[in-house]
Amino acid sequence: MSEHFCFHHDPIIESLLDTDFYKILMLQMIWGLYPQIHVTFSLINRTKTVRLSDDIEEKELRVQLDQARSLRFTKQEIAWLGSHTFYGHQNIFSQKFLNWLQDFQLPEYELELHNGDYRLRFYGLWTYTTMWEIPALAIINELRSRSAIKKLSRFSLDLLYARAKTKLWNKVERIKKLPDIKISDFGTRRRHSFLWQRWCIEALKKGLKHSFSGTSNLLLAMKTNLPALGTNAHELSMVIATLATTNEELLNTPYKVMKNWSHYYDGKDFRIILPDVFGTVSFLKNAPDWIAEWTGFRQDSGIPIEEGERIISWLKNKGQDPSEKLIIFSDALDIDSIETTYQHFKKRICMNFGWGTNLTNDFKNCSPQNTSKIEALSLVCKPTEVNQRPAVKLSDNPEKATGDPKEIKRYMHFFQNQ
Amino acid sequence: MSEHFCFHHDPIIESLLDTDFYKILMLQMIWGLYPQIHVTFSLINRTKTVRLSDDIEEKELRVQLDQARSLRFTKQEIAWLGSHTFYGHQNIFSQKFLNWLQDFQLPEYELELHNGDYRLRFYGLWTYTTMWEIPALAIINELRSRSAIKKLSRFSLDLLYARAKTKLWNKVERIKKLPDIKISDFGTRRRHSFLWQRWCIEALKKGLKHSFSGTSNLLLAMKTNLPALGTNAHELSMVIATLATTNEELLNTPYKVMKNWSHYYDGKDFRIILPDVFGTVSFLKNAPDWIAEWTGFRQDSGIPIEEGERIISWLKNKGQDPSEKLIIFSDALDIDSIETTYQHFKKRICMNFGWGTNLTNDFKNCSPQNTSKIEALSLVCKPTEVNQRPAVKLSDNPEKATGDPKEIKRYMHFFQNQ
Repeated sequence: MSEHFCFHHDPIIESLLDTDFYKILMLQMIWGLYPQIHVTFSLINRTKTVRLSDDIEEKELRVQLDQARSLRFTKQEIAWLGSHTFYGHQNIFSQKFLNWLQDFQLPEYELELHNGDYRLRFYGLWTYTTMWEIPALAIINELRSRSAIKKLSRFSLDLLYARAKTKLWNKVERIKKLPDIKISDFGTRRRHSFLWQRWCIEALKKGLKHSFSGTSNLLLAMKTNLPALGTNAHELSMVIATLATTNEELLNTPYKVMKNWSHYYDGKDFRIILPDVFGTVSFLKNAPDWIAEWTGFRQDSGIPIEEGERIISWLKNKGQDPSEKLIIFSDALDIDSIETTYQHFKKRICMNFGWGTNLTNDFKNCSPQNTSKIEALSLVCKPTEVNQRPAVKLSDNPEKATGDPKEIKRYMHFFQNQ
Repeated sequence: MSEHFCFHHDPIIESLLDTDFYKILMLQMIWGLYPQIHVTFSLINRTKTVRLSDDIEEKELRVQLDQARSLRFTKQEIAWLGSHTFYGHQNIFSQKFLNWLQDFQLPEYELELHNGDYRLRFYGLWTYTTMWEIPALAIINELRSRSAIKKLSRFSLDLLYARAKTKLWNKVERIKKLPDIKISDFGTRRRHSFLWQRWCIEALKKGLKHSFSGTSNLLLAMKTNLPALGTNAHELSMVIATLATTNEELLNTPYKVMKNWSHYYDGKDFRIILPDVFGTVSFLKNAPDWIAEWTGFRQDSGIPIEEGERIISWLKNKGQDPSEKLIIFSDALDIDSIETTYQHFKKRICMNFGWGTNLTNDFKNCSPQNTSKIEALSLVCKPTEVNQRPAVKLSDNPEKATGDPKEIKRYMHFFQNQ
């Protein structure tokens, strides 16, 4: 019955399109502007109470990572990328880029056990290592789900998924009550499993209709004929910042990234500001005026209502009408914070909720055996080194800062005093 | 996925053992003592707001009834009845009875449309017509379930059963909190479907362990290796009462039935009093002392707490210790009334809850389409005529009285004045 959500020993990643849309958008720009930069991506387990090796065998992890490395983009997938209309725009990928993509392969990985936790690193050119982020996280999360349900009886499995479906549908019914709300699936990296994510997407599609704007997952967008969603991520500024040789360059990094971005992707939906890489306060304070022309913001750290208010007043100062702007909330959303945030900002600014972990991996209290192993972890995979220099992300939430502590201090001191 | 709970066009009744245990227990006594009595059983739809023909086609109803008529007890089933230990007793069925049972077939039926409702009647010897009660009800209820889900998409079906499973498990988790409670499945006649009843039984078995005492369904008891439960029903007194030629005989009917019963089945678990056929008050008032020696009562109408208190004080008057007696509550139970009744009587008298409709057919608000067609009906199949005389049941709840209104009045007047 429900076992089909998680076949053991089956490949977890079956296509290179099983990743977030924004990775490919960023990849085209990285490939065009920074083809020679080396960037190391590292797995970071923020859930200190859980040691991955307790639940995941090194052997099965290697099998899945190797399996993902065996993948190539198929002709059909390349053709789809080349011809499909994204955000109303066709041919957003150049033929040269698509030709290069045809031979793309995930690079080697370095895996070692380090006090019970896995140290998983990807060394090499940014144009290759960047593509590991999503599949690596999806593999580890699904392996952990599989190990959590491995010992469940057929009946318990059946009940587990029955309750998870009921839980999700209760969320759908609460969201249906919010007029004109927009919800998106951003849950690929933290999903319980690929098939479960697909079920969640089907549920949102059936339940929310036009209020469901699409998925960040390219493969599922292609398979389910939904809009693929996403723009760019912190890694761009994180990496470029390490190349800065002057304070001015460092300060201007986020804006420079956006300028380059707009040369690659015009069209309003691509122009989403990610203000928190080194702190939203400093970003807004030092932002050139043209930034305010962009379509909206993605709020990915800090307290949604605080950050939203900060953004709205900044927009007003810049002479913009917030009601014509958009905020995409994408940080740790659950049904309660979605409702509260929506009610707080409705009619004042357009909103979209990019729902991740709590959408595609919410199995808390669903197992009759009541195991916590089924609960999602806070795992990320971030750039940690760029050409031997340490990379840093601050964000608006101390826990979400990544990088060498000394460097984090240095960045904080710098950006907070600009 | 979940479709397997309801295959369209599949036989609903696949074995003559797919009935309540008490029907076979009663059958042996009827066969032994009343082989020549003719009893007509009639379908009665107490849910006046629903016309069965709106949801069930006459053709498919006939197909299922004919299919049930094609069944015989298999050698293996007869062997099981003959050798199995029921309530700790072996060989409760005589070899002569089992030989007769080998050739048993459900008798003909008379089906006609009567202002949009089906008039379904079974004429013939009591020894045959009595066996139609459970399969006829199970067939109509499952046909109605099938028609309610026929138009549901694969996704909606999946969600329907996911929510029904979740709902049932929530009940299990509430019951688990009640120490030493006993729950039994009495849900065959009103079940959503055979496979769903089996799922419910599996859930109670897994969730409640020793607090789940078994099922009234013989086939499922055999298949799942659970105790088969049940003793006797109203039909015995209803039929015998029509044969009474004097007031004294009429008044003594329930006690005479019990006397005969005890000759067929000794052993404490078989000695359960069903006091409400013609009203519990008159039953207790006129009961001979030996009645108080029986193991307990089945409370099948009236308000559980009122009837329970009535029984307890009667037991005390008869010098019995209620804490050594049993009440089997079997009337319209839901999780709330189970909790309330249990809390009210715990430690004062032993209790078992024979859970029917709300256990095996609770799909209220489970369909994403929110159809009421999935909700259970109050259907019964009762003796209406005995050798041309009208049969009557009063019970402790006016709505549950069955029979010709004039006759009901006559019985009421008679029993209320004794």
